[in-house]
Amino acid sequence: MTPLLLIILGGLCAVAYGIVTITDVMKRDPGTQRMQEIAGAIAEGAQAYLRRQYATIGVVGIVLFVVLAVFLGIKVAVGFLIGAVLSGVAGFIGMNVSVRANVRTAQAASTSLGGGLEVAFKSGAVTGMLVAGLALLGVALYYLYLTRGAGLAPSSREVIDALVALGFGASLISIFARLGGGIFTKGADVGGDLVGKVEAGIPEDDPRNPATIADNVGDNVGDCAGMAADLFETYAVTVVATMVLAAIFFSGPTGSGGAVLEAMMLYPLAIGAACIITSIAGTYAVRLGSNQSIMGALYKGLITAGVLSVAAIAIVNFTLLGGFSTRFTTSTGQSFTSAGLFGCAVIGLVITALIVVITEYYTGTNFRPVKSIADASVTGHGTNVIQGLAISLESTALPAIVIVAGIIATYALAGLFGIAIAVTAMLALAGFIVALDAFGPVTDNAGGIAEMAGLPPDVRKSTDALDAVGNTTKAVTKGYAIGSAGLGALVLFAAYTSDLNYFIANASDTQYRFFKGVVVDFSLSNPYVVVGLLLGGLIPYLFGGIAMTAVGRAAGAVVEEVRRQFREKPGIMQGTDRPDYGRAVDMLTRAAIREMIVPSLLPVLSPVVLFFVIQAIAGRSQAFATVGAMLLGVIITGLYVAVSMTSGGGAWDNAKKYIEDGHHGGKGSDAHKAAVTGDTVGDPYKDTAGPAVNPAIKITNIIALLLLAVLAHS
Amino acid sequence: MTPLLLIILGGLCAVAYGIVTITDVMKRDPGTQRMQEIAGAIAEGAQAYLRRQYATIGVVGIVLFVVLAVFLGIKVAVGFLIGAVLSGVAGFIGMNVSVRANVRTAQAASTSLGGGLEVAFKSGAVTGMLVAGLALLGVALYYLYLTRGAGLAPSSREVIDALVALGFGASLISIFARLGGGIFTKGADVGGDLVGKVEAGIPEDDPRNPATIADNVGDNVGDCAGMAADLFETYAVTVVATMVLAAIFFSGPTGSGGAVLEAMMLYPLAIGAACIITSIAGTYAVRLGSNQSIMGALYKGLITAGVLSVAAIAIVNFTLLGGFSTRFTTSTGQSFTSAGLFGCAVIGLVITALIVVITEYYTGTNFRPVKSIADASVTGHGTNVIQGLAISLESTALPAIVIVAGIIATYALAGLFGIAIAVTAMLALAGFIVALDAFGPVTDNAGGIAEMAGLPPDVRKSTDALDAVGNTTKAVTKGYAIGSAGLGALVLFAAYTSDLNYFIANASDTQYRFFKGVVVDFSLSNPYVVVGLLLGGLIPYLFGGIAMTAVGRAAGAVVEEVRRQFREKPGIMQGTDRPDYGRAVDMLTRAAIREMIVPSLLPVLSPVVLFFVIQAIAGRSQAFATVGAMLLGVIITGLYVAVSMTSGGGAWDNAKKYIEDGHHGGKGSDAHKAAVTGDTVGDPYKDTAGPAVNPAIKITNIIALLLLAVLAHS
Repeated sequence: MTPLLLIILGGLCAVAYGIVTITDVMKRDPGTQRMQEIAGAIAEGAQAYLRRQYATIGVVGIVLFVVLAVFLGIKVAVGFLIGAVLSGVAGFIGMNVSVRANVRTAQAASTSLGGGLEVAFKSGAVTGMLVAGLALLGVALYYLYLTRGAGLAPSSREVIDALVALGFGASLISIFARLGGGIFTKGADVGGDLVGKVEAGIPEDDPRNPATIADNVGDNVGDCAGMAADLFETYAVTVVATMVLAAIFFSGPTGSGGAVLEAMMLYPLAIGAACIITSIAGTYAVRLGSNQSIMGALYKGLITAGVLSVAAIAIVNFTLLGGFSTRFTTSTGQSFTSAGLFGCAVIGLVITALIVVITEYYTGTNFRPVKSIADASVTGHGTNVIQGLAISLESTALPAIVIVAGIIATYALAGLFGIAIAVTAMLALAGFIVALDAFGPVTDNAGGIAEMAGLPPDVRKSTDALDAVGNTTKAVTKGYAIGSAGLGALVLFAAYTSDLNYFIANASDTQYRFFKGVVVDFSLSNPYVVVGLLLGGLIPYLFGGIAMTAVGRAAGAVVEEVRRQFREKPGIMQGTDRPDYGRAVDMLTRAAIREMIVPSLLPVLSPVVLFFVIQAIAGRSQAFATVGAMLLGVIITGLYVAVSMTSGGGAWDNAKKYIEDGHHGGKGSDAHKAAVTGDTVGDPYKDTAGPAVNPAIKITNIIALLLLAVLAHS
Repeated sequence: MTPLLLIILGGLCAVAYGIVTITDVMKRDPGTQRMQEIAGAIAEGAQAYLRRQYATIGVVGIVLFVVLAVFLGIKVAVGFLIGAVLSGVAGFIGMNVSVRANVRTAQAASTSLGGGLEVAFKSGAVTGMLVAGLALLGVALYYLYLTRGAGLAPSSREVIDALVALGFGASLISIFARLGGGIFTKGADVGGDLVGKVEAGIPEDDPRNPATIADNVGDNVGDCAGMAADLFETYAVTVVATMVLAAIFFSGPTGSGGAVLEAMMLYPLAIGAACIITSIAGTYAVRLGSNQSIMGALYKGLITAGVLSVAAIAIVNFTLLGGFSTRFTTSTGQSFTSAGLFGCAVIGLVITALIVVITEYYTGTNFRPVKSIADASVTGHGTNVIQGLAISLESTALPAIVIVAGIIATYALAGLFGIAIAVTAMLALAGFIVALDAFGPVTDNAGGIAEMAGLPPDVRKSTDALDAVGNTTKAVTKGYAIGSAGLGALVLFAAYTSDLNYFIANASDTQYRFFKGVVVDFSLSNPYVVVGLLLGGLIPYLFGGIAMTAVGRAAGAVVEEVRRQFREKPGIMQGTDRPDYGRAVDMLTRAAIREMIVPSLLPVLSPVVLFFVIQAIAGRSQAFATVGAMLLGVIITGLYVAVSMTSGGGAWDNAKKYIEDGHHGGKGSDAHKAAVTGDTVGDPYKDTAGPAVNPAIKITNIIALLLLAVLAHS
């Protein structure tokens, strides 16, 4: 019992950190009356967004809750509820802190760069720690209840199904936050620019544009709430899938059972708890050095968190697994030591570091890729876009190779369970990584507020410096999010095959009848496996295409709304009338929710429809093989689609910044105009379609797991 | 012996058609002195391109010939030589006809639209029939020699290896023609536009621009020589792989052996021969109706060829396979009837028809996708590109579903061999399909010549109408090329696994020693399979990225060269001095060859390097599994990358045409400028990176087959 309590204590530390830090941030000076007014409008818009978004999620959630309760029982439905509510709470609090920290960052930046960095980063850290802490607490506490309170065996199907449903609850929030949020933020951005800059001839961040506030809200929607929900989901889903693997590998006649089973099921949770502590320690290491390097300050924190995590995980191995030399054997006959598992965890941390470095190379202004796009801008819009697409395609290579090397190394050390532990360790740092991402919109907003409130130019210079770093950290965390989602999905796939084997092996006339006589051929020479791989591969493409079109339509809706406000209230342009920011936000939220219906059904329905279609054509066994292959297919193209979109988009964005810094003629030059085109193209790439591929991958996988559970009940 | 002679006769019909038609085309009026001058310059440029390209291929080819002779024997090396030489001959003659038919088309179009169509289409048909005829003859005659002349058993390894090498010879030409040619054509196009339109302010197709001739040569390089080599390769490789499958399925202890084996190995060749005759018949059905619909005329020919092919294949089944009810059983225990195989062939033809229709929908000016891009152009460059990317992603869905449905249906009818027969039937129409594609550059050139020679505007109107249809047929045939390449590669993959199983089953101390004790786990739950899938999936991405960058660099080289000529010969701009077109062509050819080195090594080296790396890490068995999975991985992402690029590029191109037809403000409007940007982006997408993915997919697969052969010899 003690390890589980310590784990819960770790989760509570994150919550405590959140409370302390929120109090700290809120105590800061919120600036002048005008600044507070603008920040108030952003906060009001964020409320409008959250209200409508959560109302819709509530309706969908209740329906799903009832469906799950009917098909899989109340414990499963409650698991789903816990996942959804906790992810929602993390995003809700994070957003609310973020839209209050923005103005305080602007104010602090008017005194010193370091002050601005501190407020912005702390506010991001609140979201980050809440994500990691609440995800961990949700899984740990529900596991505690199920195994102690309800007295179920740790490896029983009821426990596994309930935990998988918890992951599914997180998925619900994730798809709304990522896809709906992505359409919202880029609809506001693109639409606001079209009607403001192009039609009305007013600058960006002009308070007369009714879409300006929606744009600022959108920054938080995408990189605070969106990233929080995405990583909450990956975190929950990976920890749960690792526990499922532990349950399957360490129980049953050939498994070790008992204490080993319990220790292995707690091991991923313990890694999570240990790394929450180290992540918190890392946040205190974020301090601007004498060289005034913001990125350097953030890296100091990340490196501190990473190095301490290695030590912390070693302690976990010693306390929970009885030292490095303990040897374990799985029910499938694989054998490895505690040191091997520790090695896997360290590899997970190394993968994180490498992906961060690679993404910075592809999206940072100091390196070849971004410079090549800036160079290509000199010869026009077309060549800018061609080079940007070339970089976006190329940027997938190194992350893919790192992931492949990670798979090979961890598999050699500890088999499939080793891969799962590596991903767990990778995600254990999610608290700190989300902090890096959620820092971005706060600084972005701070710059906007400084602009709108007419603060002196050197404040804007400080916020611009923070914002530029924010662009890189946003890209870097997106690389991490997709990398971990891809690896996490591999673990989910392993859970699918292990689950399937379990049901087939234990099928009889009294239980798991559906699986009786099923023989699944997952071999590549089975054409149904090829069919599954191809159809799975299609999902990210179709999903991405629909998402990109959706942004265009949402932007069109913004244009209509802004035109309507300008027409009905001519005083807005004269500055005598206040635009109705809330209406623009609400209209856009509705548009985003409407636009996300079709694409979000794609990953939800695909595995289910495919299963029943193939079952009708070729029987049950082939249907299971096809769906399994689909799960891998969606990872394979999904990884490339998502990495290319997020890295390419980041590179386009920073190529524009690079030119604005005075290269190739600077702001207003022809090269700059071409770079603006590239940035516009990159926007829905990096903030809508690319990131939304993550939940699409995970949802396809988790729906397949739930499908197995439902079929097992039938 | 009789069937084989009939098959050879079929191939000879294609050659005879070529000779007759060339004579016919060359007899046409080549127009005025000025027109002949311009056409002469294009022909001269084409010669310069072919000379240097073939010189380089010659050197690489000799090296490969020696390597193959040393490692695999002289019969294999000769097979390679036959494939390379015949593919080269088809491309060489096709290009030479094409650059002579262009001026005759322009002249014929000055009398009637129908006349222009006739000359252009006939010239394309020469290339098409030579591709199908020479590919068929190469395989059939070498097979005749090997089995009759050299007296080898039809299913012996020597015959199989020699035929696979023939496919590899075709691959060598294909990668040069597709990748090198793609870089050439778009380097000329983009570079010529940059330096001509942007810098010097002279219109497109202006004879003062030294890159103009290179641009016109490039059209032929891409869509005549490139497509010819691509489909020659797919044709040869698919027919050979189907024969390999037949050899494995219908020999050995449980196979039927003898007459059945021979019939099954000849069946794909017979389908090819039969469809050459129907394709020739189809060319005579291409006639402009009273409605003056060019596309309608071409469709009449395609439908005629398709419908006749169904009848012709039925005749093949009756004569070669002894009627529809004959039943066959493979050595792997699958059983199917001749009618089942006929069904598979018909499905292959249906897939062709569906892919043509779908691609026309996504790239034709009458439908939603192109119109949506044109609409998005109104709001600027960025929105044009966003919508184009959205369409390019979306356009992959229906072709993928058609292919998947084809796999399921043909597998149900006749197992793996059924899939192979469907692809064979699909490719049997290659003669007619290449004709549709090679028709494009002729009309494109004709328009350029009409422009440069100052022909009356209504001639230009006729050539423009032909050119617009050419844009669609080019896109349509690209869809067909990638669809067939993808399915063909699946057959290659099946050949890989079957080959591997054969070697493993027959491994002993005296033969195939390398395969002793090898147990390959192709299951998706083997992490090395995931590794292979991921790394295979990377190839098209990295390859595409490098190819896009290469176009940018080649275009830069063109800019330098043109600037140099303008500087050194100031008379060019005054029209008193003639630009050195040949130098521009030669310089660009060199640049294209230089730029293609790295990307072309990617598919060649990847399977080999991967094999030895994994062998060192995890042993032989896992190395075979990883390489096998890589072959599928490259198909899965390759299909999506190539379809999205070729369809998206075609849609961008026609969105520009749609606006030029007078929509959204027409030529010169802001929407038009945005559409030009989209078209520029689409150029390397649809003419370089996208089509070059086809040979990349096939080469990866064929190299793996050769690797097996080499290891079997070791």
